[in-house]
Amino acid sequence: MKLIVAVVQDKDSANLQQALVAAKLHATKLASTGGFLRSGNTTLLIGTEDRRVDELLDLIKQHCHTRNQVISPISSLDANTDGYMMHPVEVEVGGATVFVLDVDQFKHF
Amino acid sequence: MKLIVAVVQDKDSANLQQALVAAKLHATKLASTGGFLRSGNTTLLIGTEDRRVDELLDLIKQHCHTRNQVISPISSLDANTDGYMMHPVEVEVGGATVFVLDVDQFKHF
Amino acid sequence: MKLIVAVVQDKDSANLQQALVAAKLHATKLASTGGFLRSGNTTLLIGTEDRRVDELLDLIKQHCHTRNQVISPISSLDANTDGYMMHPVEVEVGGATVFVLDVDQFKHF
Ligand code: NI
Ligand code: NI
Ligand code: NI
Repeated sequence: MKLIVAVVQDKDSANLQQALVAAKLHATKLASTGGFLRSGNTTLLIGTEDRRVDELLDLIKQHCHTRNQVISPISSLDANTDGYMMHPVEVEVGGATVFVLDVDQFKHF
Repeated sequence: MKLIVAVVQDKDSANLQQALVAAKLHATKLASTGGFLRSGNTTLLIGTEDRRVDELLDLIKQHCHTRNQVISPISSLDANTDGYMMHPVEVEVGGATVFVLDVDQFKHF
Repeated sequence: MKLIVAVVQDKDSANLQQALVAAKLHATKLASTGGFLRSGNTTLLIGTEDRRVDELLDLIKQHCHTRNQVISPISSLDANTDGYMMHPVEVEVGGATVFVLDVDQFKHF
Protein backbone atom coordinates (compact mmCIF):
# COMPACT_ATOMS: atom_id res chain seq x y z
CA MET A 1 0.00 0.00 0.00
CA LYS A 2 1.18 3.52 -0.80
CA LEU A 3 -0.03 6.96 0.14
CA ILE A 4 0.47 9.44 -2.66
CA VAL A 5 0.62 13.14 -1.79
CA ALA A 6 0.09 15.15 -4.98
CA VAL A 7 0.22 18.94 -5.11
CA VAL A 8 -1.50 20.07 -8.30
CA GLN A 9 -2.87 23.30 -9.72
CA ASP A 10 -6.50 24.12 -9.01
CA LYS A 11 -7.05 24.30 -12.77
CA ASP A 12 -6.05 20.66 -13.20
CA SER A 13 -7.64 19.36 -10.07
CA ALA A 14 -11.18 18.71 -11.33
CA ASN A 15 -10.01 16.84 -14.44
CA LEU A 16 -7.58 14.75 -12.43
CA GLN A 17 -10.21 13.91 -9.83
CA GLN A 18 -12.64 12.75 -12.54
CA ALA A 19 -9.92 10.54 -13.98
CA LEU A 20 -9.24 9.08 -10.53
CA VAL A 21 -12.93 8.30 -10.00
CA ALA A 22 -13.07 6.62 -13.42
CA ALA A 23 -10.06 4.51 -12.38
CA LYS A 24 -11.67 3.73 -9.01
CA LEU A 25 -8.78 5.41 -7.18
CA HIS A 26 -9.94 7.25 -4.07
CA ALA A 27 -8.65 10.73 -3.35
CA THR A 28 -9.11 13.15 -0.49
CA LYS A 29 -8.67 16.81 -1.34
CA LEU A 30 -6.99 19.15 1.14
CA ALA A 31 -7.24 22.91 0.95
CA SER A 32 -3.77 24.25 0.27
CA THR A 33 -1.91 27.32 -0.93
CA GLY A 34 1.58 28.28 -2.10
CA GLY A 35 4.60 27.86 -3.15
CA PHE A 36 4.75 31.56 -3.58
CA LEU A 37 4.63 31.91 -7.34
CA ARG A 38 1.91 29.34 -7.70
CA SER A 39 -1.42 30.79 -6.73
CA GLY A 40 -4.16 28.29 -6.27
CA ASN A 41 -3.16 24.72 -5.75
CA THR A 42 -4.73 21.63 -4.30
CA THR A 43 -3.19 18.78 -2.34
CA LEU A 44 -4.63 15.33 -2.98
CA LEU A 45 -4.09 12.32 -0.73
CA ILE A 46 -4.53 9.12 -2.72
CA GLY A 47 -4.21 5.63 -1.31
CA THR A 48 -3.43 2.76 -3.64
CA GLU A 49 -1.96 -0.70 -3.87
CA ASP A 50 1.69 -0.84 -4.93
CA ARG A 51 0.87 -2.38 -8.31
CA ARG A 52 -1.21 0.68 -9.32
CA VAL A 53 1.33 3.40 -8.50
CA ASP A 54 2.65 3.71 -12.06
CA GLU A 55 -0.88 3.93 -13.45
CA LEU A 56 -1.66 6.66 -10.93
CA LEU A 57 1.50 8.61 -11.75
CA ASP A 58 0.56 8.41 -15.45
CA LEU A 59 -2.89 9.83 -14.71
CA ILE A 60 -1.38 12.71 -12.75
CA LYS A 61 1.14 13.42 -15.53
CA GLN A 62 -1.60 13.33 -18.19
CA HIS A 63 -3.88 15.75 -16.38
CA CYS A 64 -1.47 18.25 -14.83
CA HIS A 65 0.00 20.81 -17.16
CA THR A 66 2.59 23.52 -16.87
CA ARG A 67 1.32 26.94 -17.89
CA ASN A 68 2.79 30.37 -18.39
CA GLN A 69 1.44 32.96 -16.02
CA VAL A 70 2.12 36.67 -15.81
CA ILE A 71 3.03 37.83 -12.33
CA SER A 72 3.76 41.30 -11.07
CA PRO A 73 6.73 41.68 -8.69
CA ILE A 74 4.46 42.69 -5.84
CA SER A 75 3.11 39.15 -5.77
CA SER A 76 6.59 37.65 -5.66
CA LEU A 77 8.02 37.36 -2.14
CA ASP A 78 11.57 36.81 -3.35
CA ALA A 79 11.56 39.54 -5.99
CA ASN A 80 14.60 41.74 -6.24
CA THR A 81 13.89 45.46 -6.13
CA ASP A 82 16.01 46.37 -9.15
CA GLY A 83 14.36 48.00 -12.15
CA TYR A 84 13.98 44.90 -14.28
CA MET A 85 11.85 43.11 -11.73
CA MET A 86 9.44 46.03 -11.38
CA HIS A 87 7.82 44.98 -14.69
CA PRO A 88 5.38 42.08 -14.85
CA VAL A 89 7.13 38.84 -15.83
CA GLU A 90 5.90 35.61 -17.32
CA VAL A 91 6.80 32.45 -15.41
CA GLU A 92 6.04 28.79 -15.88
CA VAL A 93 3.78 27.40 -13.17
CA GLY A 94 2.49 23.91 -12.44
CA GLY A 95 2.20 21.00 -13.20
CA ALA A 96 2.37 18.57 -10.22
CA THR A 97 4.69 17.68 -7.34
CA VAL A 98 4.18 14.11 -6.18
CA PHE A 99 5.46 12.19 -3.16
CA VAL A 100 4.91 8.42 -2.96
CA LEU A 101 5.06 7.20 0.66
CA ASP A 102 5.25 3.67 2.01
CA VAL A 103 2.35 2.75 4.26
CA ASP A 104 3.04 0.68 7.35
CA GLN A 105 -0.62 -0.17 7.96
CA PHE A 106 -3.80 0.62 6.07
CA LYS A 107 -7.23 0.35 7.67
CA HIS A 108 -10.72 1.02 6.47
CA PHE A 109 -13.38 0.96 9.17
CA MET B 1 7.17 7.03 16.06
CA LYS B 2 4.30 6.90 13.59
CA LEU B 3 2.28 9.52 11.76
CA ILE B 4 -1.33 8.49 11.32
CA VAL B 5 -3.35 10.11 8.54
CA ALA B 6 -7.04 9.48 9.23
CA VAL B 7 -9.82 10.62 6.89
CA VAL B 8 -13.07 10.62 8.85
CA GLN B 9 -16.56 12.03 8.41
CA ASP B 10 -17.23 15.50 9.79
CA LYS B 11 -20.01 13.99 11.90
CA ASP B 12 -17.56 11.73 13.71
CA SER B 13 -14.73 14.20 13.93
CA ALA B 14 -15.68 16.03 17.14
CA ASN B 15 -16.28 12.84 19.13
CA LEU B 16 -13.05 11.32 17.91
CA GLN B 17 -11.09 14.45 18.74
CA GLN B 18 -12.47 14.50 22.28
CA ALA B 19 -11.46 10.85 22.69
CA LEU B 20 -7.96 11.68 21.44
CA VAL B 21 -7.61 14.55 23.92
CA ALA B 22 -8.77 12.26 26.74
CA ALA B 23 -6.09 9.77 25.66
CA LYS B 24 -3.47 12.54 25.43
CA LEU B 25 -2.98 11.86 21.73
CA HIS B 26 -2.35 15.04 19.78
CA ALA B 27 -4.15 15.61 16.51
CA THR B 28 -4.00 18.32 13.88
CA LYS B 29 -7.11 18.78 11.79
CA LEU B 30 -6.84 19.58 8.10
CA ALA B 31 -9.69 20.98 6.04
CA SER B 32 -10.56 18.39 3.42
CA THR B 33 -13.26 17.37 0.99
CA GLY B 34 -14.14 14.38 -1.19
CA GLY B 35 -14.12 11.27 -2.16
CA PHE B 36 -17.00 12.15 -4.34
CA LEU B 37 -19.83 10.36 -2.62
CA ARG B 38 -18.71 11.44 0.80
CA SER B 39 -19.60 15.04 1.42
CA GLY B 40 -17.95 16.57 4.41
CA ASN B 41 -14.90 14.84 5.75
CA THR B 42 -11.96 15.80 7.89
CA THR B 43 -8.34 14.68 7.72
CA LEU B 44 -6.53 14.28 11.02
CA LEU B 45 -2.76 14.03 11.42
CA ILE B 46 -1.91 12.21 14.63
CA GLY B 47 1.60 11.53 15.87
CA THR B 48 2.16 8.71 18.30
CA GLU B 49 4.71 6.26 19.62
CA ASP B 50 4.65 2.82 18.00
CA ARG B 51 3.31 1.13 21.14
CA ARG B 52 0.12 3.25 21.05
CA VAL B 53 -0.87 2.65 17.42
CA ASP B 54 -3.31 -0.18 18.20
CA GLU B 55 -4.97 1.89 20.92
CA LEU B 56 -5.32 4.76 18.48
CA LEU B 57 -6.78 2.55 15.75
CA ASP B 58 -9.32 1.24 18.30
CA LEU B 59 -10.36 4.80 19.17
CA ILE B 60 -10.86 5.64 15.50
CA LYS B 61 -12.85 2.45 14.91
CA GLN B 62 -15.04 3.14 17.97
CA HIS B 63 -15.88 6.69 16.99
CA CYS B 64 -16.23 6.50 13.21
CA HIS B 65 -19.42 4.99 11.90
CA THR B 66 -20.74 4.06 8.51
CA ARG B 67 -24.07 5.68 7.68
CA ASN B 68 -26.62 5.46 4.90
CA GLN B 69 -27.04 8.64 2.94
CA VAL B 70 -29.41 9.48 0.12
CA ILE B 71 -27.68 11.03 -2.85
CA SER B 72 -29.10 12.32 -6.10
CA PRO B 73 -27.24 11.37 -9.29
CA ILE B 74 -26.36 15.01 -9.98
CA SER B 75 -24.00 14.91 -7.01
CA SER B 76 -22.30 11.75 -8.22
CA LEU B 77 -19.51 12.36 -10.71
CA ASP B 78 -19.40 8.74 -11.82
CA ALA B 79 -23.14 8.31 -12.24
CA ASN B 80 -24.36 6.55 -15.33
CA THR B 81 -26.99 8.41 -17.26
CA ASP B 82 -29.35 5.48 -17.66
CA GLY B 83 -32.84 5.67 -16.18
CA TYR B 84 -32.17 3.79 -12.98
CA MET B 85 -29.49 6.20 -11.82
CA MET B 86 -31.67 9.25 -12.36
CA HIS B 87 -33.50 8.46 -9.11
CA PRO B 88 -32.01 9.31 -5.72
CA VAL B 89 -30.12 6.34 -4.28
CA GLU B 90 -29.10 5.40 -0.79
CA VAL B 91 -25.41 4.64 -0.31
CA GLU B 92 -23.28 3.71 2.66
CA VAL B 93 -20.78 6.43 3.56
CA GLY B 94 -18.01 6.63 6.15
CA GLY B 95 -16.53 5.49 8.44
CA ALA B 96 -12.71 6.10 8.35
CA THR B 97 -9.75 5.55 6.04
CA VAL B 98 -6.49 5.34 7.95
CA PHE B 99 -2.85 5.30 6.83
CA VAL B 100 -0.11 4.55 9.38
CA LEU B 101 3.25 5.96 8.23
CA ASP B 102 6.72 5.33 9.60
CA VAL B 103 8.46 8.46 10.83
CA ASP B 104 12.15 8.88 10.12
CA GLN B 105 12.62 11.74 12.60
CA PHE B 106 10.26 13.45 15.00
CA LYS B 107 11.01 16.86 16.49
CA HIS B 108 9.16 19.14 18.82
CA PHE B 109 10.65 22.62 19.14
CA MET C 1 14.21 12.54 -0.65
CA LYS C 2 12.19 13.37 2.44
CA LEU C 3 8.75 14.84 2.98
CA ILE C 4 8.63 17.05 6.05
CA VAL C 5 5.26 17.67 7.69
CA ALA C 6 5.58 20.68 10.00
CA VAL C 7 2.75 21.97 12.19
CA VAL C 8 3.58 25.54 13.20
CA GLN C 9 1.73 28.47 14.70
CA ASP C 10 0.09 30.92 12.30
CA LYS C 11 2.16 33.68 13.89
CA ASP C 12 5.39 31.98 12.84
CA SER C 13 4.22 30.74 9.49
CA ALA C 14 4.93 33.81 7.36
CA ASN C 15 8.48 34.26 8.70
CA LEU C 16 9.25 30.59 8.24
CA GLN C 17 7.88 30.58 4.71
CA GLN C 18 10.04 33.57 3.77
CA ALA C 19 13.08 31.77 5.16
CA LEU C 20 12.19 28.67 3.13
CA VAL C 21 11.88 30.71 -0.07
CA ALA C 22 15.26 32.33 0.63
CA ALA C 23 16.73 28.84 1.04
CA LYS C 24 14.99 27.63 -2.15
CA LEU C 25 13.04 25.04 -0.18
CA HIS C 26 9.54 24.59 -1.53
CA ALA C 27 6.62 24.43 0.86
CA THR C 28 2.91 23.83 0.42
CA LYS C 29 0.67 25.29 3.10
CA LEU C 30 -2.39 23.36 4.27
CA ALA C 31 -5.24 24.93 6.20
CA SER C 32 -5.29 23.31 9.62
CA THR C 33 -6.64 23.75 13.13
CA GLY C 34 -6.10 22.24 16.60
CA GLY C 35 -4.53 20.66 18.96
CA PHE C 36 -7.10 22.04 21.27
CA LEU C 37 -5.08 24.56 23.25
CA ARG C 38 -3.37 25.89 20.19
CA SER C 39 -5.67 28.13 18.22
CA GLY C 40 -4.45 28.96 14.77
CA ASN C 41 -1.86 26.72 13.30
CA THR C 42 -0.62 25.91 9.84
CA THR C 43 0.63 22.65 8.38
CA LEU C 44 3.46 22.89 5.87
CA LEU C 45 4.50 20.09 3.52
CA ILE C 46 8.12 20.53 2.48
CA GLY C 47 9.99 18.26 0.13
CA THR C 48 13.77 18.15 0.29
CA GLU C 49 16.81 16.06 -0.45
CA ASP C 50 18.15 14.06 2.50
CA ARG C 51 21.27 16.21 2.80
CA ARG C 52 19.23 19.34 3.51
CA VAL C 53 17.01 17.95 6.29
CA ASP C 54 19.19 19.30 9.13
CA GLU C 55 19.31 22.74 7.54
CA LEU C 56 15.53 22.68 7.21
CA LEU C 57 15.03 21.60 10.82
CA ASP C 58 17.30 24.47 11.91
CA LEU C 59 15.20 26.96 9.95
CA ILE C 60 12.02 25.66 11.57
CA LYS C 61 13.59 25.81 15.03
CA GLN C 62 14.83 29.36 14.44
CA HIS C 63 11.49 30.70 13.26
CA CYS C 64 9.01 28.89 15.47
CA HIS C 65 8.70 30.15 19.02
CA THR C 66 6.85 29.05 22.10
CA ARG C 67 4.64 31.76 23.56
CA ASN C 68 2.54 32.19 26.65
CA GLN C 69 -1.15 32.55 25.94
CA VAL C 70 -4.05 33.19 28.28
CA ILE C 71 -6.91 30.77 27.79
CA SER C 72 -10.25 30.56 29.53
CA PRO C 73 -11.43 27.10 30.57
CA ILE C 74 -14.37 27.25 28.19
CA SER C 75 -11.93 27.00 25.30
CA SER C 76 -10.18 23.99 26.79
CA LEU C 77 -11.87 20.71 25.92
CA ASP C 78 -10.01 18.75 28.58
CA ALA C 79 -10.51 21.27 31.37
CA ASN C 80 -11.44 19.94 34.76
CA THR C 81 -14.51 21.53 36.29
CA ASP C 82 -12.95 22.19 39.68
CA GLY C 83 -12.72 25.76 40.93
CA TYR C 84 -9.13 26.42 39.96
CA MET C 85 -9.71 25.75 36.30
CA MET C 86 -12.64 28.16 36.10
CA HIS C 87 -10.20 31.09 36.06
CA PRO C 88 -8.28 32.01 32.93
CA VAL C 89 -4.89 30.33 32.87
CA GLU C 90 -1.69 31.06 31.04
CA VAL C 91 -0.25 28.19 29.02
CA GLU C 92 2.75 27.79 26.79
CA VAL C 93 1.79 27.27 23.14
CA GLY C 94 3.86 26.54 20.03
CA GLY C 95 6.46 26.22 18.66
CA ALA C 96 6.53 23.42 16.00
CA THR C 97 5.81 19.72 15.67
CA VAL C 98 7.76 18.15 12.83
CA PHE C 99 7.59 14.73 11.17
CA VAL C 100 10.29 13.71 8.68
CA LEU C 101 9.03 10.98 6.33
CA ASP C 102 10.96 8.81 3.89
CA VAL C 103 9.83 9.19 0.30
CA ASP C 104 9.65 6.09 -1.88
CA GLN C 105 9.36 8.04 -5.13
CA PHE C 106 9.40 11.75 -5.92
CA LYS C 107 8.10 13.13 -9.21
CA HIS C 108 7.76 16.59 -10.62
CA PHE C 109 5.74 16.81 -13.83
NI1 NI D 1 -8.86 12.20 -18.32
NI1 NI E 1 -15.52 8.33 23.17
NI1 NI F 1 14.62 34.26 9.01
